[in-house]
Amino acid sequence: MGHEFDSHIEVTRQDEGSYAADLAPGWVVGGGVNGGYLLAVVGNALRTSLPGKPDPIAVSAYYLSASVPGPATVSVDVRRDGGSIATAAADLRQGEDARITALATYGDLGALGDDVRTTAEEPPMPPPEQCVPNTMAPPEVLAAAPLLERFDMRFHPEHVGWAVGEPSGNGVLSAWFRLADGREPDPISLLMVVDALPPVTFDLGMPGWAPTLELTAHVRARPAPLWLKVRHATRNMAGGMFEEDCEVWDSTGRLVAQSRQLARQPR
Amino acid sequence: MGHEFDSHIEVTRQDEGSYAADLAPGWVVGGGVNGGYLLAVVGNALRTSLPGKPDPIAVSAYYLSASVPGPATVSVDVRRDGGSIATAAADLRQGEDARITALATYGDLGALGDDVRTTAEEPPMPPPEQCVPNTMAPPEVLAAAPLLERFDMRFHPEHVGWAVGEPSGNGVLSAWFRLADGREPDPISLLMVVDALPPVTFDLGMPGWAPTLELTAHVRARPAPLWLKVRHATRNMAGGMFEEDCEVWDSTGRLVAQSRQLARQPR
Repeated sequence: MGHEFDSHIEVTRQDEGSYAADLAPGWVVGGGVNGGYLLAVVGNALRTSLPGKPDPIAVSAYYLSASVPGPATVSVDVRRDGGSIATAAADLRQGEDARITALATYGDLGALGDDVRTTAEEPPMPPPEQCVPNTMAPPEVLAAAPLLERFDMRFHPEHVGWAVGEPSGNGVLSAWFRLADGREPDPISLLMVVDALPPVTFDLGMPGWAPTLELTAHVRARPAPLWLKVRHATRNMAGGMFEEDCEVWDSTGRLVAQSRQLARQPR
Repeated sequence: MGHEFDSHIEVTRQDEGSYAADLAPGWVVGGGVNGGYLLAVVGNALRTSLPGKPDPIAVSAYYLSASVPGPATVSVDVRRDGGSIATAAADLRQGEDARITALATYGDLGALGDDVRTTAEEPPMPPPEQCVPNTMAPPEVLAAAPLLERFDMRFHPEHVGWAVGEPSGNGVLSAWFRLADGREPDPISLLMVVDALPPVTFDLGMPGWAPTLELTAHVRARPAPLWLKVRHATRNMAGGMFEEDCEVWDSTGRLVAQSRQLARQPR
């Protein structure tokens, strides 16, 4: 049996370097289609066009306009393909409207050395069964954010005060994460995971939609199966914008992805 | 009197969206021309092609091959220009060789609100006169890295053990920074500043050159004149790559730029 995520990110080759996608309505949130899901669609088209380099290593996406469910085209232009990595540009369009322009470097994460000298520390989290599940969201929230049905998220109890009108003000959100239908994480799905949680500005008492201007993700290892641990933080809210840093840790305790986005402050 | 930085990043319009540059030999370091300087050249071409949007807000550069001093061409393709920001792609080439491909969003940092709600804390540094100047570098280092002559850098004494064979192992470097000829910082020069210090891997006991794969910089405010405070840190060295985060603070204590790059571990 296939998983819905794989069918939702599916791309079909049209001409040389051009892929058709169908943006699924189940990923709508706020004023458009979730940016992480869109990044996974773009990432899947890139993977398809770079044989032998299946994994995103670095992806930078600039969000030009809000996407809507329905047909889209991803065009890929390979800029350099030599040695162990390749770099390509990708554009996602809907009709005449440019939605996303992106650059990415792909390679084979399985072929990298196992040498890990990280000083990053896995953020502490109570076990999933002691965390707050997204299924507890009120019906009006679920109606406005159908993408929540795609996820099994368990929020850190200390980072979920915003759900009851008591944001901590620290600018930190964290949760256990997996896809609701049990589809295991892989490097492409991590491109979605880095933008799946609510905006970290919820924890600053700003519950609105925070449109992403730019998001860069580094995928550093293929994730192990089961739960991911996702942490968002912001430090610099200024001039109507904020940065949101995201870390994704897999079930073996390895830091598998890091991302930073620049987003507009909710109004 | 003009400053050398401005003449070194100068671009001359050729055709629509195409600019000629001349990469100055004074920015050579390791196996090529400094990536931060190249980013400022690209940034200057972008600024020239986006009237009314003089400031880089987000710039993502993918480094495809090492540049050499001499002629280069920067081509700019505007992807969206509407409202207060514009997004464009830029490519730097030398002859047939693609050196850098980049995406950027520009706007007017002076028109942003003054609302600052940052929780980021300015890193402590002893005053410049109590720090270690780059002019103390041995002659063989200065010969291999002529770009050091462009800078007045004063390294935090606790982050400079690598210079005497005693790296701290913490993965942190920080320094006061300004251009040697007194040219004051601006948003374009910040694109250079985020990649001007030695690689943070020096502090991990790896003194070699660390080629950048990808670098994304966010410029969050126009910097005030005088000294900048620059801090580099890495947390995740794995699979032959590491991330390097950089913060730049201006003389008023404002966080004016944040960047992250993914680079190859020195051999």
